[in-house]
Amino acid sequence: MTSIEGGVTAPKGYQASGIPAGIKPGSTKKDCALILSDAPASVAGVFTTNIMKSPPVIQNVEVCERGTARAVFINSGNANAATGEAGMRDVAQSAEWIAAACNCDPLEVCLSSTGVIGVPLPMDRIKLGVDACAEALSSDGSLDAAEAIMTTDTVPKERAKEAELSTGVIRLGGIAKGSGMIAPNMATMIAVITSDASIEPSDLRPIIKEAADRSFNRIGIDNDMSTSDTVLVLANGAAGLPPLTEGSPDLAIFSQALNTLCEELAKDLVRDGEGATKFVEIAVSGTETDSDAQTIARAIGLSQLSKAAFFGEDPNWGRFACAAGYSGVDFDPAHISVALDDLTIMHKGLAADYKEEDAVAVMKQPEFTVRVSVGDGPGQALFWTSDLSHGYVSINADYRT
Amino acid sequence: MTSIEGGVTAPKGYQASGIPAGIKPGSTKKDCALILSDAPASVAGVFTTNIMKSPPVIQNVEVCERGTARAVFINSGNANAATGEAGMRDVAQSAEWIAAACNCDPLEVCLSSTGVIGVPLPMDRIKLGVDACAEALSSDGSLDAAEAIMTTDTVPKERAKEAELSTGVIRLGGIAKGSGMIAPNMATMIAVITSDASIEPSDLRPIIKEAADRSFNRIGIDNDMSTSDTVLVLANGAAGLPPLTEGSPDLAIFSQALNTLCEELAKDLVRDGEGATKFVEIAVSGTETDSDAQTIARAIGLSQLSKAAFFGEDPNWGRFACAAGYSGVDFDPAHISVALDDLTIMHKGLAADYKEEDAVAVMKQPEFTVRVSVGDGPGQALFWTSDLSHGYVSINADYRT
Repeated sequence: MTSIEGGVTAPKGYQASGIPAGIKPGSTKKDCALILSDAPASVAGVFTTNIMKSPPVIQNVEVCERGTARAVFINSGNANAATGEAGMRDVAQSAEWIAAACNCDPLEVCLSSTGVIGVPLPMDRIKLGVDACAEALSSDGSLDAAEAIMTTDTVPKERAKEAELSTGVIRLGGIAKGSGMIAPNMATMIAVITSDASIEPSDLRPIIKEAADRSFNRIGIDNDMSTSDTVLVLANGAAGLPPLTEGSPDLAIFSQALNTLCEELAKDLVRDGEGATKFVEIAVSGTETDSDAQTIARAIGLSQLSKAAFFGEDPNWGRFACAAGYSGVDFDPAHISVALDDLTIMHKGLAADYKEEDAVAVMKQPEFTVRVSVGDGPGQALFWTSDLSHGYVSINADYRT
Repeated sequence: MTSIEGGVTAPKGYQASGIPAGIKPGSTKKDCALILSDAPASVAGVFTTNIMKSPPVIQNVEVCERGTARAVFINSGNANAATGEAGMRDVAQSAEWIAAACNCDPLEVCLSSTGVIGVPLPMDRIKLGVDACAEALSSDGSLDAAEAIMTTDTVPKERAKEAELSTGVIRLGGIAKGSGMIAPNMATMIAVITSDASIEPSDLRPIIKEAADRSFNRIGIDNDMSTSDTVLVLANGAAGLPPLTEGSPDLAIFSQALNTLCEELAKDLVRDGEGATKFVEIAVSGTETDSDAQTIARAIGLSQLSKAAFFGEDPNWGRFACAAGYSGVDFDPAHISVALDDLTIMHKGLAADYKEEDAVAVMKQPEFTVRVSVGDGPGQALFWTSDLSHGYVSINADYRT
């Protein structure tokens, strides 16, 4: 597997576009994106577990149950969430417009909306956006699409991979957005991944779920799970290779490439987290199960006090150990050790013998790892988080005004 | 029940003191407090559920199991947490010194330490502190004690109540500290409550647990539960009234007074929360059970995005509804309504018809209520929280430096 240039248009048989339609209030920034597969593609998705699901999420669940998609349309600037039955009607209308513009069935259209909650979609602008996006479709339109889905993101995110199967080469590409309301189990995040591999929807579903669990569900910027979180993967078979079948080595290679792509996009989201000045990996080991390790890693990665310490470049390991202690996982407090990169600062429940300036030096780096070991068990997990900065507070105190 | 002046020395038969012993690094502030009951008092407590329990908490659990206490000694500036067996030895030594100074048994001594985790207690200073506190004991020493237990608190907290039983008048008084690492299930918080009522320890235990559940477990400043959280209640019978017996109306009156006292102290903690500029009550109703309402109230009250919106005085009700949606409680999204004080801003799943400036006006107040109704059920609950401000980030990025 190798990294290649581009995003959702890196695989064969996809076009994309991103244009401004005036949906972001008082802005001329791009706010509508369209991704089109030339042929019907297998589709699967992972969605928010928030019960306040937005109408577009409800549409996507139905499309993914059917298993075939041609188009994904995304607007930023308005979440079409908490909009009730009018929001559902707006989704149906949007899907019809997109289907007409793309010459497909409305139930082959996935939709996503991100932005302010509770405001009806400006349907005149959506119509403009759909038409302009269809007009602008291009086989190198991925970056435009990545830009159009940004809200408080400061940089567009796109990644692509090439993987060699026994039968030939396939490609995967993805774009993603989301920098606040990011929690494990996803948040105001959207990711669209395309591939030119050929896979049945039933085989795609477990693979994207696993990839999301290992990537987007392992990041935390704040602890809020949004109404709109959506990860979609399309596989259109345009590489012209035989279908990947369940249990085959080729499917495992595809799955590995998808995992890597999702992990890279997830890390990109954390790096661009609201107000983030640090990218911190929490690596937990020594638990009985991987799930226990993930619970501890998450508790540390979401602890406001730990995140404020990251921002302050303060090696206050008591906060990390404390968060492990309230995570709900049982371990012997006399067995916990904490290291910053390779510098042990807490050893078996007690302060280790280290120089404060060495610990500060690790934390002064833009990226570092907090390693926590709680025993001799085989369990381990990673979690990626940002720091809690003044920038985060400013962005979220003033988001609407 | 009426409010009266003072704190832990308002009830009869208690003395208290607070003095500086040089435990807070580079500071001449008070950092040792002693509360002494003239006679052996029934004692009960509620403690952190963090498995990284500090050595003083372990001592208190043992004292409370025995059921009788004379003295409570508290130091600030050092948490004596993550200090291992040396920390346990320091607790035993401290208890011996205090017992000698107060002429009681070491197992009648409760201890609490709050401050930085992982640094051994400076035992020479503790010895100084114990002796100076014993020397300074006074029947109006509550405020000195309340000041000595402060860490990042900006004001001392003390409250007292008088309640009329069928047999005469009893008094309750309390001091509390804690303004960061405050989460439901308590945090770096310490509260000591005294009463001159006469109650068996076995009757005191369920009453203090209920009072803590209705007060200290309903507040959130951040989401971190500390290694040291301690609520202690002493009842020494010095009012000279007959013992309060299980199931009696007089015990119910005492319990009610204790609930009110704990609620007032808990609210005081939130008002003085790290960086807090707002005191926000979250009132949830319409769930099937009170517990469900509490779960929703907690999710909103701990949501970083909601707390940042409080700081920004931004009536961004989508965030409150969103937090309710991911709380884990099942409800119909078409039935959720949100009000700021009496101004409805979301009605049955949709934006209500209200003026933005009216909503902002409510949030510009230093204290207001977010009312959330999710249906017609009988369940309801309150939760008290602060906002997430630049002050919070500054305090916690720079705590140790």
